[in-house]
Amino acid sequence: MNTLSRTAILVLLSCPLAAQNSVSGEWMLTLHEPFGPPGISRLSLLASEGKITGSLWDERVQGTVRDDRITFKAEDVAFALTLQGETLEGEATSSGETVRVSAVRIPQRPAAPHTHDFEPTAFHEYFSSQIKPALHIQVGDTVRTWAVDAGGRDHEGSRRSAGGNPQTGPFFVDGAVPGDTLVVRLNKVAINRDWARSGSGIMRRALEPETLGAMTWAKDFPNRWQLDPVKGLASLEKPTEALKRLVIPLRPMLGCIAVAPPESWSIRTRDSGSYGGNMDYNEMREGTTLYLPVFHPGALLFLGDGHAAQGDGELTGDALETSMDFEFTVDVIPGRSFGHPLAENADFLISIGIGGSLDRALQQATSGMVRWLERDYGLNANESAMLLGFAAQYDVVDLVGSQVSMAMRLPKTTLGPLTKK
Amino acid sequence: MNTLSRTAILVLLSCPLAAQNSVSGEWMLTLHEPFGPPGISRLSLLASEGKITGSLWDERVQGTVRDDRITFKAEDVAFALTLQGETLEGEATSSGETVRVSAVRIPQRPAAPHTHDFEPTAFHEYFSSQIKPALHIQVGDTVRTWAVDAGGRDHEGSRRSAGGNPQTGPFFVDGAVPGDTLVVRLNKVAINRDWARSGSGIMRRALEPETLGAMTWAKDFPNRWQLDPVKGLASLEKPTEALKRLVIPLRPMLGCIAVAPPESWSIRTRDSGSYGGNMDYNEMREGTTLYLPVFHPGALLFLGDGHAAQGDGELTGDALETSMDFEFTVDVIPGRSFGHPLAENADFLISIGIGGSLDRALQQATSGMVRWLERDYGLNANESAMLLGFAAQYDVVDLVGSQVSMAMRLPKTTLGPLTKK
Amino acid sequence: MNTLSRTAILVLLSCPLAAQNSVSGEWMLTLHEPFGPPGISRLSLLASEGKITGSLWDERVQGTVRDDRITFKAEDVAFALTLQGETLEGEATSSGETVRVSAVRIPQRPAAPHTHDFEPTAFHEYFSSQIKPALHIQVGDTVRTWAVDAGGRDHEGSRRSAGGNPQTGPFFVDGAVPGDTLVVRLNKVAINRDWARSGSGIMRRALEPETLGAMTWAKDFPNRWQLDPVKGLASLEKPTEALKRLVIPLRPMLGCIAVAPPESWSIRTRDSGSYGGNMDYNEMREGTTLYLPVFHPGALLFLGDGHAAQGDGELTGDALETSMDFEFTVDVIPGRSFGHPLAENADFLISIGIGGSLDRALQQATSGMVRWLERDYGLNANESAMLLGFAAQYDVVDLVGSQVSMAMRLPKTTLGPLTKK
Amino acid sequence: MNTLSRTAILVLLSCPLAAQNSVSGEWMLTLHEPFGPPGISRLSLLASEGKITGSLWDERVQGTVRDDRITFKAEDVAFALTLQGETLEGEATSSGETVRVSAVRIPQRPAAPHTHDFEPTAFHEYFSSQIKPALHIQVGDTVRTWAVDAGGRDHEGSRRSAGGNPQTGPFFVDGAVPGDTLVVRLNKVAINRDWARSGSGIMRRALEPETLGAMTWAKDFPNRWQLDPVKGLASLEKPTEALKRLVIPLRPMLGCIAVAPPESWSIRTRDSGSYGGNMDYNEMREGTTLYLPVFHPGALLFLGDGHAAQGDGELTGDALETSMDFEFTVDVIPGRSFGHPLAENADFLISIGIGGSLDRALQQATSGMVRWLERDYGLNANESAMLLGFAAQYDVVDLVGSQVSMAMRLPKTTLGPLTKK
Repeated sequence: MNTLSRTAILVLLSCPLAAQNSVSGEWMLTLHEPFGPPGISRLSLLASEGKITGSLWDERVQGTVRDDRITFKAEDVAFALTLQGETLEGEATSSGETVRVSAVRIPQRPAAPHTHDFEPTAFHEYFSSQIKPALHIQVGDTVRTWAVDAGGRDHEGSRRSAGGNPQTGPFFVDGAVPGDTLVVRLNKVAINRDWARSGSGIMRRALEPETLGAMTWAKDFPNRWQLDPVKGLASLEKPTEALKRLVIPLRPMLGCIAVAPPESWSIRTRDSGSYGGNMDYNEMREGTTLYLPVFHPGALLFLGDGHAAQGDGELTGDALETSMDFEFTVDVIPGRSFGHPLAENADFLISIGIGGSLDRALQQATSGMVRWLERDYGLNANESAMLLGFAAQYDVVDLVGSQVSMAMRLPKTTLGPLTKK
Repeated sequence: MNTLSRTAILVLLSCPLAAQNSVSGEWMLTLHEPFGPPGISRLSLLASEGKITGSLWDERVQGTVRDDRITFKAEDVAFALTLQGETLEGEATSSGETVRVSAVRIPQRPAAPHTHDFEPTAFHEYFSSQIKPALHIQVGDTVRTWAVDAGGRDHEGSRRSAGGNPQTGPFFVDGAVPGDTLVVRLNKVAINRDWARSGSGIMRRALEPETLGAMTWAKDFPNRWQLDPVKGLASLEKPTEALKRLVIPLRPMLGCIAVAPPESWSIRTRDSGSYGGNMDYNEMREGTTLYLPVFHPGALLFLGDGHAAQGDGELTGDALETSMDFEFTVDVIPGRSFGHPLAENADFLISIGIGGSLDRALQQATSGMVRWLERDYGLNANESAMLLGFAAQYDVVDLVGSQVSMAMRLPKTTLGPLTKK
Repeated sequence: MNTLSRTAILVLLSCPLAAQNSVSGEWMLTLHEPFGPPGISRLSLLASEGKITGSLWDERVQGTVRDDRITFKAEDVAFALTLQGETLEGEATSSGETVRVSAVRIPQRPAAPHTHDFEPTAFHEYFSSQIKPALHIQVGDTVRTWAVDAGGRDHEGSRRSAGGNPQTGPFFVDGAVPGDTLVVRLNKVAINRDWARSGSGIMRRALEPETLGAMTWAKDFPNRWQLDPVKGLASLEKPTEALKRLVIPLRPMLGCIAVAPPESWSIRTRDSGSYGGNMDYNEMREGTTLYLPVFHPGALLFLGDGHAAQGDGELTGDALETSMDFEFTVDVIPGRSFGHPLAENADFLISIGIGGSLDRALQQATSGMVRWLERDYGLNANESAMLLGFAAQYDVVDLVGSQVSMAMRLPKTTLGPLTKK
Repeated sequence: MNTLSRTAILVLLSCPLAAQNSVSGEWMLTLHEPFGPPGISRLSLLASEGKITGSLWDERVQGTVRDDRITFKAEDVAFALTLQGETLEGEATSSGETVRVSAVRIPQRPAAPHTHDFEPTAFHEYFSSQIKPALHIQVGDTVRTWAVDAGGRDHEGSRRSAGGNPQTGPFFVDGAVPGDTLVVRLNKVAINRDWARSGSGIMRRALEPETLGAMTWAKDFPNRWQLDPVKGLASLEKPTEALKRLVIPLRPMLGCIAVAPPESWSIRTRDSGSYGGNMDYNEMREGTTLYLPVFHPGALLFLGDGHAAQGDGELTGDALETSMDFEFTVDVIPGRSFGHPLAENADFLISIGIGGSLDRALQQATSGMVRWLERDYGLNANESAMLLGFAAQYDVVDLVGSQVSMAMRLPKTTLGPLTKK
């Protein structure tokens, strides 16, 4: 069981079993702002002896309950709500302004998770909350499915969509609420055909401008590869003399994993950000768990852009692009969000930073790890320094797109002796 | 035997045994510029049947020899020199301007290399050609010596110099000529005392400016460590409660390895550049070979700044700073220079890029690897892309100082099937 | 008359007057791709004596015409189209693949332009081609309208929309076709109320991380300003003692001017890119002409985010935010696009670069100017260097958002003696 | 009189006239560290009724005086010194460690400043404290002198030194002490011959790597210019057809102004840093005053690298390089240092930031201005924001060398209404 989901379950277990006609339990609360998009967050309530305690996202909640009416404060906002069947209705007041409020129950974690075999038919070139879910799944569920390659071709080489990283999904995760963290564990990421296509140059931004002029690039360099799943190797179909015996070890990964980005953003599946996206991180492979901030009810999970192998940064612009079979399991950490992607695998905690330059991306990666160590291990900034300064490693994740990304990896062996909060 | 030194020896073997009274052989040629520093480079000559062939650094040389007089052209410069005992004297003419020229023989590679036990007495805080050599050694020689820690204390904790990365050396390598590459193989890098001192914060430039304000830093965080050479672990002497059981695996390395920088630069041993310097690269450890461009006769090799362990980038500003025993063997690759540091170990070719930002440093690291693959494996830019795009990794080397550095690492397994030039 | 629009008119004049029932003239051609969005570009045809010449975006077109049928090639694509009333229908074939094609006439430049008084009722927080046009206008038309402030309040202080740079528009410009350049001349940009609100801190990313810790920031620093349109000055309503006599000269500008970004991107009006957007450039004021690449039929022009004054980079995150009256005139340069925003005013040609770091943004700004000088003045790269190296200036445009921007300004006096192409 | 020097004089006037045999007055104090370079700073003492007050650099000093013996504390260091003729001798103790201390009197500001006509004979290619002063001058003195061009040629075109920004000086300013600020007012900067030579390409790092491949560069583009001092214009001697009528307005400036960098650094005159150096800032012209931190006794001022005109960033690598006549006046602000260059002219306060990337340079420029406004106007960070956010401008100073630089300019009109501390 992974690091964060253990916490998730503890949190869930510590919540009382909500009686059908009680206000206790987990709610998805909506502030109906007069202008602009509604504000949605998780409300956790425990009613006991006329008192209400709990949390609204990461704010403490305290108040009173009488019959079907509850009143409470969260920071400086006063709520007055009434239980009406399965919903709460009422209003919130802050600094003299009053806003209509409603809340619906968040479905409980199912006793037994399901495994879905999902056959995609539509592929999406945008990360967006405006796209209709392809499948509803529940916390703990597993999905077995596949993705076309970055050019829109499936395992048989048939064109299924336009090119540009078409995505499988989105998957609506029942019970994921804005402010939560979505947990996506990659159980399997495997090639499902015997060829790939790649870029054949090096991205110019990864080369010295001063010496670029001295480099010449072929127009039609052979870039189709044979994939041998048994030997786990890729080789050029028509190699040049010098590369005749070149073999690249396969290390299948997904270039894109994303939740729907905030509000109504509609982002081309070439970009990345707080929502994940086209991170092109070669650690997004079998056995890795990704943590993404949830911005919309259901999170809306997209996956795609399989690479049979990729060096750091996806230097060739297109890696060994191929279609992919994959399986993942979802979970939710309620009421906790880091605001950018985190991950872990058997060996490392991983914090992914995304920014306009490598320097900015590294800053986010480092700061994210410091926040993680504070939240999960109770370390202060100096104590974090003692781990990061002597044991942490950085990865160049991605150099493609308007944002680049870096990751900080901290070996779990370093964490071993520490007491988890 | 490592990749480049094999080349070196092939080149040396292909040179004729120079008769004492012949012009054939290896010379160090000096152009006595009327203003500014002299121009010094390697001149390789082969006299045969009245003809002269060879090279002046990386230019072809062709001319004639009659008795003790030789005349030849290298690019558009005409040389006329006379053998006078063990030196050549004469002049060079280009675009109507004439400059005095002299040349001395470069000592031949000794038949049997020596091992020197060197006891340093002075420690240097500058990388500079103005510093007198501490020891003359020959190509192929091995040196066993030690370095004080970054604060100037030795294995007994005695203060031996001021702080700020004091260096052992410089070592003058007979036969190293400007334009060559100096090869430094680290045979041993080992701690020689049982304690270290570290920084206790994270360098601010590695953290998001946006969230720095929310971080608080202790003034006197405990930063003295116990080093256990048997278990290979470091632990804080007076840990906080949370870090009571923290152990960091030892991985001894040298933060500084440098040749004297170009011309009369005098660079504080906190900086890095084309000459190497305070790269703070955690791969500079036992078993690694470093390649540095030679800017001065004898190269002038400096080493120091031992770290018992260091994460990527030396995030704490000071790593586990300690004194160090080390042993290295030197070699020279004549007439070949990459202009910035390269390295290799058992598993990887490594190109180190140094620049004002991570983005610039990455550009130099990548371009350096492309040039290396071209020069040693005859790969063109597209062919390089096929290796780098699917198998190369980046390291964040160093975030300290006015220049930062990154490295690109290419697994030797990828190179295995390729034919070396 | 500005630099580029002069060219536009010359181009338009050189086109033949299209007879109603002839294929000659300007068409908007659509390639109906089987997957993905349609490809739309400008087709200019001149039929004469059975021959067809012209251009498809920036490709030469050559072919034949017989009755209502035309066939031509553009690069390696073969077109076969039939005139059916006011449309062309047919197909295009390339590398054995055939795609359906249709084309409609582009409306001609009207003889007399109109001036529209436009009263906005909806305000948009996204730059997107998915938003329905608020008004259709024609090439040469002028629009007089206004914008709410960044927080959604109008000239009376009434809340009209949610905050976050709500936009007026979008305006659909008849005759603007993907691949064209949209010309927007700002005839007037003027405040329309007597107060503004600003940020009160400095963006952390504009300050040294190393010294940020020593800075303290007030939570509730007074940030409401009085605007005096007569004196042209802003002053704090409740200044601190030290700022009691502080006055800031007014220099009204629009923080946002954009066309709909490519494809179906939906971009929050806080970001900027090739489409313009929230550039926050203090030169976007009365008298400035902006050139934007057209990505969609009609271009879809958005404007908003008035600033009464703003220093370089919008250091305070929010400048002197206020509602604004403005007037602009649109034009189109057919079949020419620079791919990113250009501008000019009475004194300068301006090339705006947008990127993840200032270094990247500067590169685009410089390269854009070199391309402009090549296209409009026929200068080669060296000739451009002779102007830029000794007369050009840079502006820091914007430090807000995931992308930052810089501009290069070249004094028109330097261009004066040069012959325009 | 400029902003900071006014302060300087006020400080000086507030110091008591030191009697010859009294300890009162200004001293240059040296801590003779057992290892490493000595620590030198300014000690200001006022002895009165057996008590000592004053400052040691920026620390308060308090103690007692009896006969020739004084004892005082500065922070946590205890000093015990004895007056011996014109020096103080004794020791300092801190944390149990004792160090020998000596102090000499700092010469008083002369009643009447001198003007020196200095004829340089040696030109220096390093900024370094190791170089012997060419002339000793006093606070308030003026120097009239000249500089060779960047290639080492004088006003007659004669070669006087090697190329690479040879410097005039260094000038030893009596009374400048480490920790002070050196004030250099440029009274005159004027060309003294009728030709210049320039670079003819654009620095590759200022162009998009993505489009560099499409640019071609001439090998021998004409780059010699005629300078017309009467018309104030430069024109190419052998222009291409397109540039036949190109004229560039002259705006003479000095590319290099520097003090000797810290400790024993020896920096090639192509680089820049906290000491100033090759900043290549086109505001370093007649009428500008530069403020530089003093690192060594006498400051050691270097000047050179005249440009007849230069756009922002010195895009061509070499601007209009020419020899230059210039005149400057020096002053010292005692006991105050900003750690990096500041400047001002008639219209602006200017803070110059130098770093590895434009983003880093901008951070230093902004932070330096915030510190300046705090120190001289008593503004807190929020109050500074109110000026910088709405009135400040940035310049791209320099793109050449391993460090780049940017400046923030704040109009003095904005400062006018503020009360100077």
